Amino acid sequence: MGFSKSKSGQAEIIVIGDEVISGFIVDTNSKYLGQRISELGMRVLCITKIGDDFSEIKESVEKALQRSDWVILTGGLGVTHDDITKSVVMKVFGSNLRRDAKVEAMLQENFSKRSGNIPESVQSQCEVPDNCHVLYNEVGTAPGLRFEKNRHVLFCLPGVPHEMKHLFEQYIAPELIKNSTKAFSQRILRTTGISEADLWARVGSLTRLQNKANIASLPSHLGVRIRLSCLEETKDKGETLLDEVEQSLMKTIGPYVYGKNNETLEAKVGQLLKDKSMTLATAESCTGGLIGHRLTQISGSSKYFKEGFIVYSNEAKVSRLGVDQKILDSHGAVSEPIARLMAEGVCRAAGADIGVSVTGIAGPTGGSEEKPVGLTFIAVSDVFGTWSGKYIYTHDRIKNKERVAQTALNLVRMRLLGLLEEKK
Amino acid sequence: MGFSKSKSGQAEIIVIGDEVISGFIVDTNSKYLGQRISELGMRVLCITKIGDDFSEIKESVEKALQRSDWVILTGGLGVTHDDITKSVVMKVFGSNLRRDAKVEAMLQENFSKRSGNIPESVQSQCEVPDNCHVLYNEVGTAPGLRFEKNRHVLFCLPGVPHEMKHLFEQYIAPELIKNSTKAFSQRILRTTGISEADLWARVGSLTRLQNKANIASLPSHLGVRIRLSCLEETKDKGETLLDEVEQSLMKTIGPYVYGKNNETLEAKVGQLLKDKSMTLATAESCTGGLIGHRLTQISGSSKYFKEGFIVYSNEAKVSRLGVDQKILDSHGAVSEPIARLMAEGVCRAAGADIGVSVTGIAGPTGGSEEKPVGLTFIAVSDVFGTWSGKYIYTHDRIKNKERVAQTALNLVRMRLLGLLEEKK
Repeated sequence: MGFSKSKSGQAEIIVIGDEVISGFIVDTNSKYLGQRISELGMRVLCITKIGDDFSEIKESVEKALQRSDWVILTGGLGVTHDDITKSVVMKVFGSNLRRDAKVEAMLQENFSKRSGNIPESVQSQCEVPDNCHVLYNEVGTAPGLRFEKNRHVLFCLPGVPHEMKHLFEQYIAPELIKNSTKAFSQRILRTTGISEADLWARVGSLTRLQNKANIASLPSHLGVRIRLSCLEETKDKGETLLDEVEQSLMKTIGPYVYGKNNETLEAKVGQLLKDKSMTLATAESCTGGLIGHRLTQISGSSKYFKEGFIVYSNEAKVSRLGVDQKILDSHGAVSEPIARLMAEGVCRAAGADIGVSVTGIAGPTGGSEEKPVGLTFIAVSDVFGTWSGKYIYTHDRIKNKERVAQTALNLVRMRLLGLLEEKK
Repeated sequence: MGFSKSKSGQAEIIVIGDEVISGFIVDTNSKYLGQRISELGMRVLCITKIGDDFSEIKESVEKALQRSDWVILTGGLGVTHDDITKSVVMKVFGSNLRRDAKVEAMLQENFSKRSGNIPESVQSQCEVPDNCHVLYNEVGTAPGLRFEKNRHVLFCLPGVPHEMKHLFEQYIAPELIKNSTKAFSQRILRTTGISEADLWARVGSLTRLQNKANIASLPSHLGVRIRLSCLEETKDKGETLLDEVEQSLMKTIGPYVYGKNNETLEAKVGQLLKDKSMTLATAESCTGGLIGHRLTQISGSSKYFKEGFIVYSNEAKVSRLGVDQKILDSHGAVSEPIARLMAEGVCRAAGADIGVSVTGIAGPTGGSEEKPVGLTFIAVSDVFGTWSGKYIYTHDRIKNKERVAQTALNLVRMRLLGLLEEKK
């Protein structure tokens, strides 16, 4: 997909650090910045990653400032000997150091909560170049810096991802938006429980929709994300176009869409439970607690998540959930009857309105010809009855656990929406 | 920490693709290549990522070939209109196209398994530049290319990660090793339960050790990783030096090191439990199942992980673990006495040899002046008694949960190693 050269200006990204170019740490900053800058209607020319070397950083910064309107650099603003970004950009802009009272006051307040005074090792962060704007960092110790020369702007941000994001959103995004001639609109529709091929087969011809917006799909083992985006004269016009495309897609694939943008499946399940004033309990075998973990990622989940049982052993399935030992002996722990008894048992034991259970063989060992690795049964039970299903996953242990938890949460969502009828 | 310029030559990496610079897909190729090239003893000068633009790719390739001995490019070798890498490098090297019989035979064999003949859309992959070596691709349709000019070498690889890795390992790694004058050695020591500052304070002066190897530390909210690396004449010599440095570090920080290289804390806990033929049970409140989830990431964990209780409600703490309702009323659920009763109760209820419990306020709501968000109590109980501790975490809900689970697993590890004495 080719991006057209934007009138709003060209940006580039520089990432500093030996640890990044030698592959010791994953650089997530450049992806974040690339995405956000594109979203805001600027063209990203390139991303350059270089080590902690004075002359190379200097050369990269100078080159970038010659060719791009916006240069965003991250990394090398800490206080150890390999953090040389500040001294490089001071050389480029002919700066001297000055002590910044606000930075000092912020650091003082920060450290007074912990141990007392600003440690000697951090004192140098109070010193900033005298010919830049300071981007005050409320979530860390290294301030960001903004330089300008011949209408070309350089931003220097710390490399710690949450600090980088905070400063980008607080200082840089507003400035880019102010300078952008087009408005970028985007939304993500998150689906699960359907393959990419089946999804697009349901939608049918895309031509009419693609005239209105760009449509891209990104499949993973947990579902397919659909990205709708457009670059229009006004935000309103873009949003109207995306509304039209979204509504059209929802007609054919609506039941598979669990959320929009950053909405998670566990948040959606929580919202539905709250709306219906219902409580949920979990009985997990092969997922080992992952479903409970995901449910409790949501603040306020104690309102509806009653209790969870990690019943890894047969013994626990019997004693906690009242699973019948005879059925366990005849069908085995990984079977549809046991999944159903677990879901029904966990409702009863926890006094919850809806119960979900999983039992499966996560792998890589423990499989047999009759019951291969990846075989999983999932059941959902409520006052109307019990639904159960059989699934076979073919990934590694960790991905299998993730898929099982995703499917289980999606089945709870569908049950709460009346999309899942009991079976048997 | 700066790497010294290697005699074996300088390398750089170029990644092509609009989807990469606009942040729509994660580029994992450059991390892989950066790490592997460093491991093989070459210095990585920089990583450049650019979009699907002819003149920009051409300029980047030419510049890279001027300054670096080895240039490794990935992406843009497919068959859609935005795959222009082949035409760019043909321009740079003044190539003409020739039909390669071996590529054609390989593609023919590949497609005969699927549908029959080589599809029209893929035919162009049989055409290769006439002045390069072909890197025959057994795992995909796009061949790699190797050009050489003035003893500087350019490799072009497809962007699909498993194809890129396959061709790198088959063709490029052997050539780099042949040209490398030094052998790279590396190991990671993984610590938790101690801050970066306290860690290095315990170690004391590093000068003597730094003469033997590079030492770098990478802190995260779950612990500090220490990377030891060196570039020596032989692999044996490097490993011997790293052994010496590791042994020296272990004398002062040994109890905090839970694993080496990619070893996880849950794997270590599992190994200790297996070695001692002991079983574990978990009682989780604020972590909501995360500890159980982590324990069950390990294949074979059913041998030692007996059962878990996600006791989010007070009711569940009483009925599952036998926590005394009066103590719950007087101290509240988030208190040291309750953590202790939970750990003792879960051992009893599950019949496990060792029990671990957590109760805390994950946030962002639910805190009070007396009991702020992040306040957590963790207890470990076994036949020798019960240990408990108070922790205050100051991250967001998700990171707090992760830290609590990490600390709880580490306390189990320490208890199993006899490093944790009961308190009270």
